[in-house]
Amino acid sequence: MRFDPASLAYDDKGLIPAIAQDAATGEVLMMAWMNREAVEATLETGRVTYWSRSRQSFWIKGETSGHVQRLVDFRYDCDSDCILVTVDQTGPACHTNRRSCFYRAVRDGETVELMAPMG
Amino acid sequence: MRFDPASLAYDDKGLIPAIAQDAATGEVLMMAWMNREAVEATLETGRVTYWSRSRQSFWIKGETSGHVQRLVDFRYDCDSDCILVTVDQTGPACHTNRRSCFYRAVRDGETVELMAPMG
Repeated sequence: MRFDPASLAYDDKGLIPAIAQDAATGEVLMMAWMNREAVEATLETGRVTYWSRSRQSFWIKGETSGHVQRLVDFRYDCDSDCILVTVDQTGPACHTNRRSCFYRAVRDGETVELMAPMG
Repeated sequence: MRFDPASLAYDDKGLIPAIAQDAATGEVLMMAWMNREAVEATLETGRVTYWSRSRQSFWIKGETSGHVQRLVDFRYDCDSDCILVTVDQTGPACHTNRRSCFYRAVRDGETVELMAPMG
């Protein structure tokens, strides 16, 4: 069946959460938001493109940092209200220079850091 | 540093997205929402607990279906506005009886199904 980006369930701001997972290792790298146009751009260009809520503009991941996300597979969930992209990630995905944004864990009630910024 | 569930960045509805990942295989199983009380319950009980937006009530995953998510690790991201729980998932995570909610992919513009319901 032909996929229609308009068929996804966007929220009242026109956005849908998108999880980025390393296609090779399975590591969850980050979560950000797309709108319909970002979904279309991601599928058309193979460069993962988000909508930046803070800047209110398109955010072609890696465009300024060089930390590009090349799309490997584009998936969506049962309710069509969440996207999972598996990606080939160049360098760190996180703006703190860590490989993943999920670098903190809660263990025995304490926050612990799981990884250091990349060199 | 002591973790305070109130320190997470909840949205204007008091919710934060939570991604569930199979701790053993790395498979991304689902995404749902938590509020502060669901975060506290998840950490205190070791049973992953969401806030159901449709039912407007707590949703202890597997309470009715038996498809329990036992918490393995609780992580959160750089902006403190997304949670990643790694879990020990009993049976399917998806209400369609599939292991993962992300069972559809877009390939060459077509939607393809990646997995069948569990037997």
